[in-house]
Amino acid sequence: MKVLVIGANGKVGKHIVKKLMESSHTPVAMVRDPDQVPQFEELGAETVLGDLEKGFEEAYYGVDAVIFAAGSGPDTGADKTILIDQEGAIKAVDHAKHFGVQRFVMLSSMAADRPEQGPDGLRHYLYAKHRADEYLKSSGLNYTVVRPGMLTNEPGTGKVKLDEHINDFGEIPREDVAETLVYLLSVPRAENKSFDLISGEQQLEDVLAY
Amino acid sequence: MKVLVIGANGKVGKHIVKKLMESSHTPVAMVRDPDQVPQFEELGAETVLGDLEKGFEEAYYGVDAVIFAAGSGPDTGADKTILIDQEGAIKAVDHAKHFGVQRFVMLSSMAADRPEQGPDGLRHYLYAKHRADEYLKSSGLNYTVVRPGMLTNEPGTGKVKLDEHINDFGEIPREDVAETLVYLLSVPRAENKSFDLISGEQQLEDVLAY
Repeated sequence: MKVLVIGANGKVGKHIVKKLMESSHTPVAMVRDPDQVPQFEELGAETVLGDLEKGFEEAYYGVDAVIFAAGSGPDTGADKTILIDQEGAIKAVDHAKHFGVQRFVMLSSMAADRPEQGPDGLRHYLYAKHRADEYLKSSGLNYTVVRPGMLTNEPGTGKVKLDEHINDFGEIPREDVAETLVYLLSVPRAENKSFDLISGEQQLEDVLAY
Repeated sequence: MKVLVIGANGKVGKHIVKKLMESSHTPVAMVRDPDQVPQFEELGAETVLGDLEKGFEEAYYGVDAVIFAAGSGPDTGADKTILIDQEGAIKAVDHAKHFGVQRFVMLSSMAADRPEQGPDGLRHYLYAKHRADEYLKSSGLNYTVVRPGMLTNEPGTGKVKLDEHINDFGEIPREDVAETLVYLLSVPRAENKSFDLISGEQQLEDVLAY
């Protein structure tokens, strides 16, 4: 499948593009800034310019699947949490419906399914992610929502714990998150489901495989 | 009808309680802070404590209708826009469904139906209001959404322009907004509709009356 990576320049997004290059799929890296293009061209990955706040519909031409991995990050205000994390994702879902995309994999966040339990400073972010996840789930698209625990920059291990609900918070390397998102693109048992994700004991290729 | 006023201590909310006292309905003023109670008791209005961020389900006992007029206001960050204006309203809708409330009138904002056209500093707020309005509209509740123009503190005139879409921005006194919300509670032709609202030429009692 040709897979549009929204948020390709993010810390997880870069891993996703690389993992897709190593897979049977073909990435299209969507970035906002022309300066962000050369790094992906060096990898041999197709790139497309798109801005979640302004417009990115053109990025969808010829696309079979979408991985949404964009986020406004910790350095901007909560206004951007609404405009990027929530509304950018909602627009991405709308475009996917419009273009008949076959698969939509959402990078969410641990506890986005229970934002009321989140810590004070994070609760608004969890609600924004929650709204986007709910919008995707009721969109009619073939979706998978992945809610990873605390992200680290450690090298990937390829060993994870993926379950519809994991009670204990845990960490996971961004590289493993990216590999999981790419893996789940073509796992039938992941379709129309939501999962928590942390580091674990199971080899990724065995996850949901039985 | 017994009408729960959520955000009774706000600038529009105070007018709503007074207008309800003068109407055939009975207000229940929901406020967050015990210090806000005496002003409503002096009016003879029933009050109930409830916090949109913590919990307010108890406020719904015996309630027939809800007017949602709460807002985080301009002095707090956009995190509160998510937690109060968006998520508070969504919880208010959920509770109304749970308690079988017959009417839900939402105080929204001009342009909340087209947030992408809003000015930069306001767009995130308009999206938050939009999400809340959309949630209400798809809730199955008997709703009315009212999107007033720029609010002023001028005395009310009782003369308005209410229409599903008004192209020109305009002002309207908060007192007239409050009177309109109360009026629309019992106007059958306002049910399951959304309206823009500014000052105008029509006497309120003639609006949607023919």
